Amino acid sequence: MMENVTSAQTISRHELRQLVCNQLHTLLERENWEGAKALLIPVQPVDIAEAIEGLPDSMQAIAFRLLSKDEAIEVYEHLDSSVQQNLIQDFKRQEAIEIVENMSPDDRARLFDELPAKVVRQLLAQLSPKERQATALLLGYEEDTAGRIMTPEYISLKENITVMQTLDRIRAQANASELIYYLYVTDNARRLTGIVSLRDLVVSSPEKTLGEIMTRDVVSVTTEMDQEEVARSIQRYDLLALPVVDKEARLVGVVTVDDTIDILEREATEDMYAIGGVQGDGDKYFQTSLLVVARKRIFWLLILLATNTVTGAIIQTQGALLEYTGQAIAIVAFIPLLTGTGGNIGAQSSTVVIRGLNTDELRALGPLQVIFREAMAGLLLGTSLGIMATLWAHYLMQKNIFVALSVGSSLVVISLLASVSGSSLPFLFRTLGLDPALMSAPFITTAVDVLGVLIYFAIARSILN
Amino acid sequence: MMENVTSAQTISRHELRQLVCNQLHTLLERENWEGAKALLIPVQPVDIAEAIEGLPDSMQAIAFRLLSKDEAIEVYEHLDSSVQQNLIQDFKRQEAIEIVENMSPDDRARLFDELPAKVVRQLLAQLSPKERQATALLLGYEEDTAGRIMTPEYISLKENITVMQTLDRIRAQANASELIYYLYVTDNARRLTGIVSLRDLVVSSPEKTLGEIMTRDVVSVTTEMDQEEVARSIQRYDLLALPVVDKEARLVGVVTVDDTIDILEREATEDMYAIGGVQGDGDKYFQTSLLVVARKRIFWLLILLATNTVTGAIIQTQGALLEYTGQAIAIVAFIPLLTGTGGNIGAQSSTVVIRGLNTDELRALGPLQVIFREAMAGLLLGTSLGIMATLWAHYLMQKNIFVALSVGSSLVVISLLASVSGSSLPFLFRTLGLDPALMSAPFITTAVDVLGVLIYFAIARSILN
Repeated sequence: MMENVTSAQTISRHELRQLVCNQLHTLLERENWEGAKALLIPVQPVDIAEAIEGLPDSMQAIAFRLLSKDEAIEVYEHLDSSVQQNLIQDFKRQEAIEIVENMSPDDRARLFDELPAKVVRQLLAQLSPKERQATALLLGYEEDTAGRIMTPEYISLKENITVMQTLDRIRAQANASELIYYLYVTDNARRLTGIVSLRDLVVSSPEKTLGEIMTRDVVSVTTEMDQEEVARSIQRYDLLALPVVDKEARLVGVVTVDDTIDILEREATEDMYAIGGVQGDGDKYFQTSLLVVARKRIFWLLILLATNTVTGAIIQTQGALLEYTGQAIAIVAFIPLLTGTGGNIGAQSSTVVIRGLNTDELRALGPLQVIFREAMAGLLLGTSLGIMATLWAHYLMQKNIFVALSVGSSLVVISLLASVSGSSLPFLFRTLGLDPALMSAPFITTAVDVLGVLIYFAIARSILN
Repeated sequence: MMENVTSAQTISRHELRQLVCNQLHTLLERENWEGAKALLIPVQPVDIAEAIEGLPDSMQAIAFRLLSKDEAIEVYEHLDSSVQQNLIQDFKRQEAIEIVENMSPDDRARLFDELPAKVVRQLLAQLSPKERQATALLLGYEEDTAGRIMTPEYISLKENITVMQTLDRIRAQANASELIYYLYVTDNARRLTGIVSLRDLVVSSPEKTLGEIMTRDVVSVTTEMDQEEVARSIQRYDLLALPVVDKEARLVGVVTVDDTIDILEREATEDMYAIGGVQGDGDKYFQTSLLVVARKRIFWLLILLATNTVTGAIIQTQGALLEYTGQAIAIVAFIPLLTGTGGNIGAQSSTVVIRGLNTDELRALGPLQVIFREAMAGLLLGTSLGIMATLWAHYLMQKNIFVALSVGSSLVVISLLASVSGSSLPFLFRTLGLDPALMSAPFITTAVDVLGVLIYFAIARSILN
């Protein structure tokens, strides 16, 4: 068996997962339940969840019922929320309650967020009082805050108990608590006073008290803190878990490092979508219906269509004014080059500033420093590109040096404008309390279009006259 | 003191850090060394590192020397690599060696990557044989692989020893090992056969052997696996650490969850930069010199300038052909609207596909499904925008319905084209073994420009004739 596992890993875990998924499908089609059960025994819960997600809807519940009760609960927590919802509504009442009762409270709160209110009420009513209270507590906090994502399952102890007593306590409680690598020390008012890692505990002599070995300078967050801030703290201090306290500094929950990874990933997706001009909160784009997807994308497109109409109107009126030069078409033909380049430089500046603001890299630098630096970069890029564009334009235009010079000098001005607006608008948005990523690349691109065309016509007119 | 810490945390850890940084600066200016030392006592190493980075270069070494030896080593590991390099070259030989000797091997390998080869050779020569060997081992693996980022410090034990003996062993070794939350069980050939978490150990009865309590189905990776894959495995299986084995399945190191967060963050930054048209490997943009920054940005800009020149040439030749209609300027005036919208739709499609490929969200879906779905989205968006654009163009163009219809119908075709190319090119790049993010938004935008203009002119000509 060991041989098996090791060689499968060197093939690639991904291929192994695909294999399991295909085999499971075949076995279920042949109604070979025992074979399917045997297949899943050595597979990790998260991989079983993926295999079930890959099955046709009609088979998902059947596959799920093959699992042992403990396994079913673990697998269920790893399923996609749409599959979770389908299954829970397929199950008999008793089955559904059993699974929901045994989920960890933070995962359960996340599921309840997605289920229809009616189903949530029914399920809540049937939970044990302890679990119901834990869930209601979490659901009481704002979405995306520490309170909502924490788990209320942790071990808290008093200062005066000994290492030996603590180890006994852990042996008794280990199954109840999601994470026992940190133990929390609280006073009589349940206020957090210190932290002891399981590692500290194991290496300390058994008769010492927790008060003697605990770390008193605890990094903690409050329930209303934004989940991204929470994740950043865990990242910054290299923690496995972060305690959450209420306004009276009483310990109420713990956020774990595995949630951190998912939060930061979702936030990164959200930023990336914003930069690409897609609205959304980092949720699963490809599991969303086409109409919702279109709605998420049309917002920016409409704004851009409107501003582009303005650009069109400017070209039309200004272009007509230029017809006496006999060069109108030649001049207008360079507009895509100018607005395209300006838009790209602006997109670059806004991308680096947005990412810098959201990963804390920019916390140390002031806005003026950053904008100045971007302005310099814009000038440097604009000048190099401007020289090249002048040469190209000159060659293309059969030696009309005036149009070529207009193009080149406009490019310098437009690049400077683009990098300054691309870098300053995210700061402005943050100052207004909005997400800097709202100030995304498509917006900058289009704003630069309108101004760029105006600048170009002004320069072209003064050079051609 | 407890009161202090708690209230400071509710103010905001970020403000506290700023305060420490400013106070440290003032105290050092006044040469109040004792005050500076006292200030730093309750501060976390990572925050001390940030405060030191905020000081002028001349003060950094002074501040660093105020730290106790243990603290100095921890703080040093958290410093920015440019500050690390400056300090190590400022230090006397003996100081430098002491710090480098005590760094963990993976952090040391990362520092050596950045230092001049001459300095690395000198430092390597003076390390203890054990540390020298550990570092040389890591430096022998390719960059960005599991081998390079792993730490060779872990606890490995044999199956037949008992829980009690293991706990004794941990007490003796705890300081040597970076992470003791997992213990690895190996056979006589050092092949990994199982894993025991510290949690399992604490809850098991002392006389059991590791062989009895260990988990045999271990998730592991090989030394040459890409660091992003490694991070994805840790994320997928919610691990705190992942063992790394060589080709003979022998345990050689461990990658920890805190490294995972940093890797995924760097990869996300890299993708985001690519989408925004900035080359780079996710390294610190704002700590990079302006010339390097310009080089990272000019690559895409030059390609885009070249293709935009093509667009310009097309407009010029085709525009001239249209002059007989008397509508040439009116027709050309809509080009920014068409190419802008097409570019944005293409950027949206490529963004969601690139992110989907890099976060595994798309692993389950085939390319054809995704491209078809994006094509449908493009058609849906193109049709809605096309109708709106026709109405606007009609109004703007003083009722010239032919131009308006050309604009509207071109928009539908261009949107379809943009979403299909935006979604299919990342797949093509992946198939060619390249990073899908290379197929970034600016590239799509410009490709769509050239084709869009050609399509528009063809449609306009056939409608106007």
